[in-house]
Amino acid sequence: MAKKKAGHVIPPTVTPLAIGIDIGGTGTKYGIVDRDGNVLFSGEMSTKKHKTIESFIDELHQVVSEAIENAGGIGRMKGIGVGAPNGNYYTGTIEYAPNLPWRGIIPLAKLVSDKFHLPVTLTNDANAAAIGEMMYGAAKGMKDFIMITLGTGVGSGIVANGHLIYGHDGFAGELGHTIIIPGGRIHEGTGKHGSLESYASATGVRLTAIEFLEKNKKPSLLRKVSPDMLDSKAVYDAAIEGDELAKEIFNYTGKILGLALANAVMTTSPEAIILFGGLTKSGEYILKPTRDSMEENLIQVFQNKVKILISHLKEAHAAILGASALVWEKEQ
Amino acid sequence: MAKKKAGHVIPPTVTPLAIGIDIGGTGTKYGIVDRDGNVLFSGEMSTKKHKTIESFIDELHQVVSEAIENAGGIGRMKGIGVGAPNGNYYTGTIEYAPNLPWRGIIPLAKLVSDKFHLPVTLTNDANAAAIGEMMYGAAKGMKDFIMITLGTGVGSGIVANGHLIYGHDGFAGELGHTIIIPGGRIHEGTGKHGSLESYASATGVRLTAIEFLEKNKKPSLLRKVSPDMLDSKAVYDAAIEGDELAKEIFNYTGKILGLALANAVMTTSPEAIILFGGLTKSGEYILKPTRDSMEENLIQVFQNKVKILISHLKEAHAAILGASALVWEKEQ
Repeated sequence: MAKKKAGHVIPPTVTPLAIGIDIGGTGTKYGIVDRDGNVLFSGEMSTKKHKTIESFIDELHQVVSEAIENAGGIGRMKGIGVGAPNGNYYTGTIEYAPNLPWRGIIPLAKLVSDKFHLPVTLTNDANAAAIGEMMYGAAKGMKDFIMITLGTGVGSGIVANGHLIYGHDGFAGELGHTIIIPGGRIHEGTGKHGSLESYASATGVRLTAIEFLEKNKKPSLLRKVSPDMLDSKAVYDAAIEGDELAKEIFNYTGKILGLALANAVMTTSPEAIILFGGLTKSGEYILKPTRDSMEENLIQVFQNKVKILISHLKEAHAAILGASALVWEKEQ
Repeated sequence: MAKKKAGHVIPPTVTPLAIGIDIGGTGTKYGIVDRDGNVLFSGEMSTKKHKTIESFIDELHQVVSEAIENAGGIGRMKGIGVGAPNGNYYTGTIEYAPNLPWRGIIPLAKLVSDKFHLPVTLTNDANAAAIGEMMYGAAKGMKDFIMITLGTGVGSGIVANGHLIYGHDGFAGELGHTIIIPGGRIHEGTGKHGSLESYASATGVRLTAIEFLEKNKKPSLLRKVSPDMLDSKAVYDAAIEGDELAKEIFNYTGKILGLALANAVMTTSPEAIILFGGLTKSGEYILKPTRDSMEENLIQVFQNKVKILISHLKEAHAAILGASALVWEKEQ
């Protein structure tokens, strides 16, 4: 309520806020965000420990309600944006997400909306990340770009004509599952051979490292690393020490990632590709072979035009920002 | 002019019309089209014989002006839509089109507009075809679909959120140049290895036929066909006679086309894929392996959802309809 003072009313300066929730396989992050992308309150809770979606929603309601109170109450909240694996924008459901503890089709948007009495927008995590980049990050002002998240898996969100492509059924933007090497490495989750995710994800880089160490007899610092610690950070640490095998692992990964980027560029012709996630921390070791391979596979009309940019959103907040951005995007 | 009759005016029933022009390497088709997709007047002239763009524009002006007069005069014409290889929607220029007689960058939209004093919209031929399908054809009412033209080359037009994707620079939708078989067959025009166009175009099918006839010793009706006549029609004619090698050629082509379609589906998640062009006349011989390969390469969430449809626009008019549809699309 606006305070009254000596006969005239002071208008309430209640700028609206959005709630961003990012549901991952292990943990769920949440935050209250203003229109400029400032995260006012944030927190994290476990996803994994909740065997049922009902108990998950109960805890989510409890912890987020606290943040809402701290941020000025439910009246300031414009809505809730949720990013989740296999989140369907049109139906508001999470469908058969292999990394979440709940099976089948979960009517997540409805469950959250019923609990908070706020409008809820759901999409998959990579799509949310793309909208976050468009609103607050490296893609600000761009109408055509592709966001690629290189994490445990490879996700993507594609923006064309200024709008995210959800596709006919809400599941567009699965570049991670496009087949780049027909008959190539099998993907444990999907059973398909040669998808981008089989090579350019954290799991993919580890498998490449193991393969290269086995078939190649040259000395390498990576031989001292235990297999379960063989991640892109370990390969990067070896590469900066001048380790040849480590560099070859990045070259191989970049060659495949670059080919996938070239195919994506020839499909939607973006202004830029924004990369996000663990693998990007290896800098030029992975970027140079990626860029070279992309240019090599592009036909002339696309060459030397498309920027490859690294997301500069803070990793801790990027997921929350992306999810909250869904709220503002919806009202446009 | 509306006729006057006994004291009151009969209002002029001047429904607006659009001019569609399709510039190909050999010939240029043109026609006058109403909003319902009826082609009122149409004709064709040579592209090839015109060494300069000026002489081409002069003849085009002459022949199209006649059609305009027959259709009620310039006053009824809403605008001109042009489909041309490497046509850039944003700049109105044709850029480095390898199959046209004119080199470099041609300011086609301006040249045509200056001559006819009508607004001109240019795009590439496959994009024009996609808009034609959306307005008059198999994609009527769809907001997310992909048009693939399987002709001398492989072209594509992608519609998402109800709008054609032109991309940042106007050249989006080059699925024909995406790399499907890394290190595969070289494309004579681009020098790239393993692109879709190297396999699923008329040239590609011919090369596959020649390769299969060489490396395979089994008897085949195709051995009697001279190499320059080895097109998809010849392969089809052999297939309906039960020729095993002919069927293998279609299976091989469909396997690669289907993989490319799966990658496109996982990128933009269309409701349907519309195929157009010579290869589609081979019916189930090419469609079955294409469909099977597409489904095989899709992850579960996309399976058994995406229709593969054959364009049912009359081949003689499809290009004109597509180009003219640009005029109506522009005003929306």
